[in-house]
Amino acid sequence: MKPVIIVSTFPNKTVTKKIANALVKKKLAACVNITKIDSVYSWKGKIQNDSEYLAIFKTTKKNEKTLKNEIKKLHPYDVPEIAEINVNSMNKPYLDWLIDSTI
Amino acid sequence: MKPVIIVSTFPNKTVTKKIANALVKKKLAACVNITKIDSVYSWKGKIQNDSEYLAIFKTTKKNEKTLKNEIKKLHPYDVPEIAEINVNSMNKPYLDWLIDSTI
Amino acid sequence: MKPVIIVSTFPNKTVTKKIANALVKKKLAACVNITKIDSVYSWKGKIQNDSEYLAIFKTTKKNEKTLKNEIKKLHPYDVPEIAEINVNSMNKPYLDWLIDSTI
Repeated sequence: MKPVIIVSTFPNKTVTKKIANALVKKKLAACVNITKIDSVYSWKGKIQNDSEYLAIFKTTKKNEKTLKNEIKKLHPYDVPEIAEINVNSMNKPYLDWLIDSTI
Repeated sequence: MKPVIIVSTFPNKTVTKKIANALVKKKLAACVNITKIDSVYSWKGKIQNDSEYLAIFKTTKKNEKTLKNEIKKLHPYDVPEIAEINVNSMNKPYLDWLIDSTI
Repeated sequence: MKPVIIVSTFPNKTVTKKIANALVKKKLAACVNITKIDSVYSWKGKIQNDSEYLAIFKTTKKNEKTLKNEIKKLHPYDVPEIAEINVNSMNKPYLDWLIDSTI
């Protein structure tokens, strides 16, 4: 079973942690790492400088599609980023735990 | 159009945000996420423990080369890290926005 | 020589920096970037919300196996995450420095 990392950004820590806890509880992600970021981006022609939170969801290939759909459903943004980063390899004991911790 | 993530590290937040704003303004990156890091590395034979800023630039394959050249041109380091991380997939609405926000 | 990024998470900053300094000193990693994260995960059936530190180790393909073994040996967790993230490309001057800074 292949491990998968999904990344998304959120407006604040409360929303990020709420969604992370919900998706770990549903066993769609085994672990979510969250960190504060400053984001620079253009929106409707204007450069924005906002603070956001980056969330790194760890799951299995089997759960990837459902996890992405749930992130989209729960996400407060109209156009959230939901991207999959390629994991070349993962140590077996951690991968086994990841598989046990997801549906 | 394939999405691309370029990462680089910078000495302080001011320089990082200045370069991020310049490259989003030039529409070479749609979005830049910036976070504070502690870096441990060897330089001229001595172990260094410095604080830096990690910047994650999001763009399209079409803009990748120009973006890398501009980061190198604007970067204060003699030998900056400019690495491309593989993005396996990205949700279509965000990718469409990414394409619209870059040249 | 191909560049490699290995990521792992640690319980606190002191342990993370100690291990990072040891592995840079042994020239198994050229550089380690460390950032504070909030982690949400399930452990023995309970949802945990802990603060951790994410460490991003940069090395070469040649050193990957030894670096992973050393991280496992030094790591305080029974089941640490040790994952390799795919690096599509890296600018030559930085890659040359990375190769010079590792065995």
